[in-house]
Amino acid sequence: MNKRENLIEKLVVQNNQKILLLVMDGIGDIPSKEFGKKTPLEYAITPNLDKLAKESITGRMIPVLPGVTPGSGPGHLGLFGYDPLEFQMGRGILEACGLNLDIKDGDIAVRCNFATANDKDAITDRRAGRIPTEKCEELCNLISSKIKEIDGVKITLKASMQHRFVVVFRGENLCDMLTDSDPLVIGKPPLEIKALCEKAEFTAKVVNKFYLQARDVIKDLKPANSLLMRGFSAKPRIPSLHDRFKLNSVCLATYPMYKGLSRLAGMTVIDEAGKNIEELFNKYIELHNKYDYFFIHVKYTDSNGEDGNFAGKSKIIEEVDKALPIIMGKMPNVLCITGDHSTPAAMKSHSWHHVPVMIHSNYCGADGAVRFTENECNGGGLGTFESRYLMNYLLANAMKLSKFGA
Amino acid sequence: MNKRENLIEKLVVQNNQKILLLVMDGIGDIPSKEFGKKTPLEYAITPNLDKLAKESITGRMIPVLPGVTPGSGPGHLGLFGYDPLEFQMGRGILEACGLNLDIKDGDIAVRCNFATANDKDAITDRRAGRIPTEKCEELCNLISSKIKEIDGVKITLKASMQHRFVVVFRGENLCDMLTDSDPLVIGKPPLEIKALCEKAEFTAKVVNKFYLQARDVIKDLKPANSLLMRGFSAKPRIPSLHDRFKLNSVCLATYPMYKGLSRLAGMTVIDEAGKNIEELFNKYIELHNKYDYFFIHVKYTDSNGEDGNFAGKSKIIEEVDKALPIIMGKMPNVLCITGDHSTPAAMKSHSWHHVPVMIHSNYCGADGAVRFTENECNGGGLGTFESRYLMNYLLANAMKLSKFGA
Repeated sequence: MNKRENLIEKLVVQNNQKILLLVMDGIGDIPSKEFGKKTPLEYAITPNLDKLAKESITGRMIPVLPGVTPGSGPGHLGLFGYDPLEFQMGRGILEACGLNLDIKDGDIAVRCNFATANDKDAITDRRAGRIPTEKCEELCNLISSKIKEIDGVKITLKASMQHRFVVVFRGENLCDMLTDSDPLVIGKPPLEIKALCEKAEFTAKVVNKFYLQARDVIKDLKPANSLLMRGFSAKPRIPSLHDRFKLNSVCLATYPMYKGLSRLAGMTVIDEAGKNIEELFNKYIELHNKYDYFFIHVKYTDSNGEDGNFAGKSKIIEEVDKALPIIMGKMPNVLCITGDHSTPAAMKSHSWHHVPVMIHSNYCGADGAVRFTENECNGGGLGTFESRYLMNYLLANAMKLSKFGA
Repeated sequence: MNKRENLIEKLVVQNNQKILLLVMDGIGDIPSKEFGKKTPLEYAITPNLDKLAKESITGRMIPVLPGVTPGSGPGHLGLFGYDPLEFQMGRGILEACGLNLDIKDGDIAVRCNFATANDKDAITDRRAGRIPTEKCEELCNLISSKIKEIDGVKITLKASMQHRFVVVFRGENLCDMLTDSDPLVIGKPPLEIKALCEKAEFTAKVVNKFYLQARDVIKDLKPANSLLMRGFSAKPRIPSLHDRFKLNSVCLATYPMYKGLSRLAGMTVIDEAGKNIEELFNKYIELHNKYDYFFIHVKYTDSNGEDGNFAGKSKIIEEVDKALPIIMGKMPNVLCITGDHSTPAAMKSHSWHHVPVMIHSNYCGADGAVRFTENECNGGGLGTFESRYLMNYLLANAMKLSKFGA
């Protein structure tokens, strides 16, 4: 935490004003020739977002650094006011938190796939034919019943969706500086996991033993008779949003990973926050008096971007727009709409493109933007700034920052 | 001083080109519905500013950090090319310098109010009915004649406006880590001043003795029979504009605080620079050949903003515009018009909103701005940048920065 970030923490005051951060995952995009040289935000019909834009201050955000494409972890940490270069976290930990696993300091988590291997241990399907989630749960329970501890390290498995699951290792002196076992291609056996530093050697021994023992448990089953591990990671030490910004924060999300991330930042996570956008928004209304910082996460803008589905992404934006009157019926003092990164449909992946952002409050000002789109936001009053400064603006608009200096 | 600021100092060369920094205090604002959804800058009729804008490069400045509302000290230090997070100064020192008190390294200054107390020492009026300045001078002289030194520490009083005055303590081993005596509410007696570190214990003893002795001097007078102290501060060690940028700088301001700040940055301060905008501008013409950096400070944009007087603020902008031909009659090589922060009339206070800025020179370029307003500046060629970098642009436009690297 440097001098500049410390400053904000010193200026923060608590009050009852409500901040709502609505993240449309992967919202930023680039124009498509097939869709009239428009972006999904431009193509979508969005009367409510348009209305808000006219009363908001807008800008573009750089999630990490110019040109850097962020994963979901750094993308969101920036939005929450953390320097994503200072607080780095592995996917294993994110997944584990999202699955409601109780993660403690010192634990190591890893993402795993059930896979199919031939009789020479070479992987023939890295996802075991995408077995159903129930099957995955069954296999996790089976392994859990046979392997509880290795060399004093306690082992916990939990199924995620389809072939995915998470393993958490709990014990003394664990270290996450480990290579993956996933060879990322078929035709090769899982790789031996190696320690990347001396401190991790014990952990490497344990996780390799775990692989062998777990494989032995399932080796005669079909199609999932092997497993792959990647993204070993320890729980990062992240000061909470309450400690840093005096916020009573809550996460309303459907996807495990975003819940996990929010939990790491000290947010209260509502387990069943809603299955769709309307339900998420209604949950905000329900909890309005209970918290002062609401993080609402909409996943499918990103999913459609990843699938290269321009029209689908645009459709999700319209769904958000259509549901917005729910929020506008009980306007938070500060409403911020943005994304964690861009996911251009044409690229089918996360990207480095600046993320459009708008902030609405009684004192936000207005900058002449008439819609919430990439190009309107380019000329916005917030200019272009790193996502990690977004929290400053949200706190300021919520009158939660006192004056600096006389 | 970090590597980046050091660079500028290494590149600086001296020449005869003139820089004029015209600060309209608190100029930035947000649109008001009552005034056609315009800001005071947009609402004002400003033919001269408009003309300049068309020949200038524009942008928006962040005074300290995104979302951070600055006091006048950090606001101006940024404009003068200092990192306001590195050079922090207390109000006491600012006030003392502004009153032309000769402040030396090691001195401690504090802002004081004459106040009214009842017979149990409880404060009944924190401003003693806003006694006239002449009365304040009389009281300061009275106390000065009775208290010249306490425990080897020399004591100087100087009246400011109405009930306000400043006390400067000069001696060995003084430290400004002290609490205030001002309880900030009525009904309570002045608080005992406490040391916030061991080094400040001697100073705490002296200032508490001063309070008791001074109160004894005035205790039978009316309405000012008590005093309150706040904002103890030592003179910060600020390298001068001449040392850093080889500038012969001069301050043309009406208000004490801005004079004080300028003096700390090593500027020559003209005591009677002018009572209104025209006089200040004429003083620039008069001194044109004598200096190469002119800081002109217009206070009333901020005062009107603080009063919530949108129309008044707009009026001051028109007055500045009307007087501008005085400056334009002897154009400096570089003319910069901006503010130290925003003071939106709707907020009646300083704010975090980015500050519009424009720079005019032979080589500034132009960015299509047709007026000097917040929204025109949003799309400006300078983009959005921290105020502490303004000096770089001013020096560059004045051909005072040599090339970096071969």
